[in-house]
Amino acid sequence: MSPTSMSRSTSPRRIVVVGGVAGGMSAAARARRLDESASIVVLEQSAHVSFANCGLPYHLSGEIEQRDALLLHTPESLRAALALDVRTGNRVTAIDREARTVTVATADGEDELAYDALLLAPGAVAVRPPIDGLDHPAVHSLRTVPDLDALAARVADLPADGPRRAVVVGAGFIGLEAVEALVARGLDVELVELANHVLPPLDAELAPFLADELRAHGVGLHLGVSAREVAASDDGGAVVTLSDGTRLPAEVVVVNVGVRPASDLARDAGLELGARGAIRVDADQRTSDPHVWAVGDAVEVTLAVTGDTGPVPLAGPANRQGRRAADAMLGRRTTPQAPVLGTAIVRVLGLTAAVTGASQAALARAGIEHEVVRIHAAHHAGYFPGAQQVHVVASFAPDGRLLGAQAVGREGVDKRIDVLATALRAGMTADDLAELELAYAPPYGAAKDPVNMLGFVAQNVLDGTMPQWHAAELDDVLATRLVLDVRSRTEFDRGHLVGALHVPHTELRGRLDEVRAAADGRPVAVHCASGVRSHIATRVLLQAGLDARNLSGGWISLTATRPDLPLEGATS
Amino acid sequence: MSPTSMSRSTSPRRIVVVGGVAGGMSAAARARRLDESASIVVLEQSAHVSFANCGLPYHLSGEIEQRDALLLHTPESLRAALALDVRTGNRVTAIDREARTVTVATADGEDELAYDALLLAPGAVAVRPPIDGLDHPAVHSLRTVPDLDALAARVADLPADGPRRAVVVGAGFIGLEAVEALVARGLDVELVELANHVLPPLDAELAPFLADELRAHGVGLHLGVSAREVAASDDGGAVVTLSDGTRLPAEVVVVNVGVRPASDLARDAGLELGARGAIRVDADQRTSDPHVWAVGDAVEVTLAVTGDTGPVPLAGPANRQGRRAADAMLGRRTTPQAPVLGTAIVRVLGLTAAVTGASQAALARAGIEHEVVRIHAAHHAGYFPGAQQVHVVASFAPDGRLLGAQAVGREGVDKRIDVLATALRAGMTADDLAELELAYAPPYGAAKDPVNMLGFVAQNVLDGTMPQWHAAELDDVLATRLVLDVRSRTEFDRGHLVGALHVPHTELRGRLDEVRAAADGRPVAVHCASGVRSHIATRVLLQAGLDARNLSGGWISLTATRPDLPLEGATS
Repeated sequence: MSPTSMSRSTSPRRIVVVGGVAGGMSAAARARRLDESASIVVLEQSAHVSFANCGLPYHLSGEIEQRDALLLHTPESLRAALALDVRTGNRVTAIDREARTVTVATADGEDELAYDALLLAPGAVAVRPPIDGLDHPAVHSLRTVPDLDALAARVADLPADGPRRAVVVGAGFIGLEAVEALVARGLDVELVELANHVLPPLDAELAPFLADELRAHGVGLHLGVSAREVAASDDGGAVVTLSDGTRLPAEVVVVNVGVRPASDLARDAGLELGARGAIRVDADQRTSDPHVWAVGDAVEVTLAVTGDTGPVPLAGPANRQGRRAADAMLGRRTTPQAPVLGTAIVRVLGLTAAVTGASQAALARAGIEHEVVRIHAAHHAGYFPGAQQVHVVASFAPDGRLLGAQAVGREGVDKRIDVLATALRAGMTADDLAELELAYAPPYGAAKDPVNMLGFVAQNVLDGTMPQWHAAELDDVLATRLVLDVRSRTEFDRGHLVGALHVPHTELRGRLDEVRAAADGRPVAVHCASGVRSHIATRVLLQAGLDARNLSGGWISLTATRPDLPLEGATS
Repeated sequence: MSPTSMSRSTSPRRIVVVGGVAGGMSAAARARRLDESASIVVLEQSAHVSFANCGLPYHLSGEIEQRDALLLHTPESLRAALALDVRTGNRVTAIDREARTVTVATADGEDELAYDALLLAPGAVAVRPPIDGLDHPAVHSLRTVPDLDALAARVADLPADGPRRAVVVGAGFIGLEAVEALVARGLDVELVELANHVLPPLDAELAPFLADELRAHGVGLHLGVSAREVAASDDGGAVVTLSDGTRLPAEVVVVNVGVRPASDLARDAGLELGARGAIRVDADQRTSDPHVWAVGDAVEVTLAVTGDTGPVPLAGPANRQGRRAADAMLGRRTTPQAPVLGTAIVRVLGLTAAVTGASQAALARAGIEHEVVRIHAAHHAGYFPGAQQVHVVASFAPDGRLLGAQAVGREGVDKRIDVLATALRAGMTADDLAELELAYAPPYGAAKDPVNMLGFVAQNVLDGTMPQWHAAELDDVLATRLVLDVRSRTEFDRGHLVGALHVPHTELRGRLDEVRAAADGRPVAVHCASGVRSHIATRVLLQAGLDARNLSGGWISLTATRPDLPLEGATS
């Protein structure tokens, strides 16, 4: 315990919390449970505390029917249960660290409030992109309750029989949730994203599954372009002009291009900031001032695996940081913050996409050596009705350590990413994943769960049992190797790579001479649909003395990665 | 590598596998992928290999419509894909370890087959309980495809308008799946279990949730009794007489009272057996004979946490053991078997029950000191429609290490048990669970996932922040303490403990004198519905200088543990 910690015996007389949502409210509640004697004041600039900001899109869609369901607590309920002094409409405009006071602006003017311990939980603010005409009345965002109210009112006012068109700018987590909500409300939605694929934190190879799902629900995609201008149209709506010249008429425009830490107050008070303007804190959430703590979207964290630093706007870490800050300011044993995995999930119509740990892109940027493994496995026993494919991509260090995983599918994605997030936190390896003992009965999983399968495949790749090739290497493969397609005749006839030799895996042992002749000294690039049959085939070839590699993730990953495949025989 | 291992360069010429389901077939398939040159012969005594034994109940119910869906492979498909020589109807009757041959009985007589490496995967056999009249034609079991065929035919033959009554003897995993299937087929089911609660591996306090669900679907429960006799009834059916004298008429009787290792062949061959007649193997699945390996339901494993040894009939470990045995017999690096967690799951009508690690009963038997923590938390954000309570009970060592967890609920149980099984395998503590970073969006979880909550509560219990009392201590509590019920007036009026003082948690700070007076020097035993509000109340009392404890799991756990509660005010 550092000398400036306040032990239980020297409990701070007044704790002031700036910001009354996730992290701030967790801290206030924990502080009260630990200390009945402290005065705890929560200052919230908006009209609402402890609201469910992650739930806003689901009220817009109508799935959460009652708006009140989003307001988890009120100042009154918090006073009754936890003796908290919660003041909404109270904006902190300055911190006097010397005097240990904050300046508070309210509707009635300005006031000073003394603190013994100060907790900053100011959150993030929406990035305002360089788009002309953002003051058009059709333009909305979706971060706060007033945002939601305004957007919901705009949608409700649309005539049922008139045009109901929306443009959503930004295909991140909230942007996709906004798209889903607007589709549910019967709007025709166009989605604009500057990156080349939807959900930029997802690796490019998984995004096409989401793109297909969006298109299947009538959503128009505009990828790799930005919105330039929102202008009034003749009919009273708006027209959004994109960087490629496309003009999209819309009655509703939703802009969500990301957030930045709301760290102005901290910066103006001279507190140390870190990467990307986030408030720098130690493992106990303490800032550079020993009497000031900070939590949530505004603070700098260290990312696991890459060691990158920066703000991470996620509710889970914010809540735990709040709890930790309360423990620390009351001089208790804390669980120091572990590096953040960045585990996140989003529902996109019928699909779920989720990530944990480092993406392939992040590993590449950080220069971390890794092997990528892909599986497409049924989310529960294939013979049990309703089995759905989970597409999982995971990266492993050469020593077998899991570095990150991402998944997309209709069912069971959340479970596998949660297991992998736990494994990642524990420093587990491919061997460990192979040996995980997960719950199996036919409605829930498989005797070899997709997570076990991921471990098996990674073991085979890492120990050289199964050399693999990747969809990204296709051009080189086509130029220098024999492609051996071991799928069934029916699958082959539906479309296959130009020049591929077709030998079903069940016939391979009897047709090795044919393969050898066709290879003519070249290495053999094997593939099937998902990588399972081609694994057997690759093993047959390797043991027959051929240089063979298996396509990681098979045809499914190949077509997701390369929409422009050089095909023969495709019937559609 | 031990000197008797067969390295890649001395690959065994013939591998003989005894038993063609889970573990045996995994071993054969893996061996072939690793070694194209070996002769691999699979000897299966039944008519089916690689059938989905875990799926049998779901074909009985009709949920898996096609019986063929259960037959995952045939000898023909295995020959084509993996060049395996699979022989059904081949029963191995003896092993000559000296000569390295097995004796095989077929329809055509007896034969000898030489092996270089022998893998035993004989599985388990149903325990035949001491019940008179098991040869009655109404009596069935549910372990094999022929069992299923016979039982399904019996059910199909029942007249739609006649009596359709079933007695299921044994309420373990398969027994409960049989009950569910028979309910789905419209039978009136009576369930008989020798233990005092259904699903004996589950701790007694969670079983009542399953019992209520069964009763709600019309299933009659007979707990703590055994079946004594099956006799013919006058109408051509059967009558099952129980140890308490109850007579249950039935057209169908299903007996599933457990299994024992099918280790007779191994024993007769002089292989070393371990606990409960299971075949003893090393971490590489090798038996006491260096040329013989064994896997699956017939082998002895060590259980994690307690260190108990014995057979564990689970498909997941069997499959992984098969893979490991193949690696070992081919001289490859293996992932030695970790102690088995015993992770298991079962669907019981609308509920799911799952377990991992040591139960409270197992910890008590092993004399392992532990703290039990209970939560009843929504499976996803409570404000999102469809939130269902997950009931989780977990045990922690005094140093915080997770020792075991069990859960029951309608949704999200499999995910939490899989995360906890992963945490358990990693040796995680309460601190680690508190800090796990799981995927959160409203349809999937909560910013504080039930697993995080479990960690928070365990931290509070273990570090003394929240002393707790347990439902099992009720009699002592009623005799020596003041019970303080901090629920709402409405909840209190629906039923409360005799003599309880009622002070809603929101009024407690203003009524401390009243509590102090009522306590009159006695410790205060606080409770609410689930333990959350009473946690706040307990903290208030402790800081006011009272001796207070919080009821672990609250009223929900109390009523599940004590159906005979001394209540006042109950309106029903």
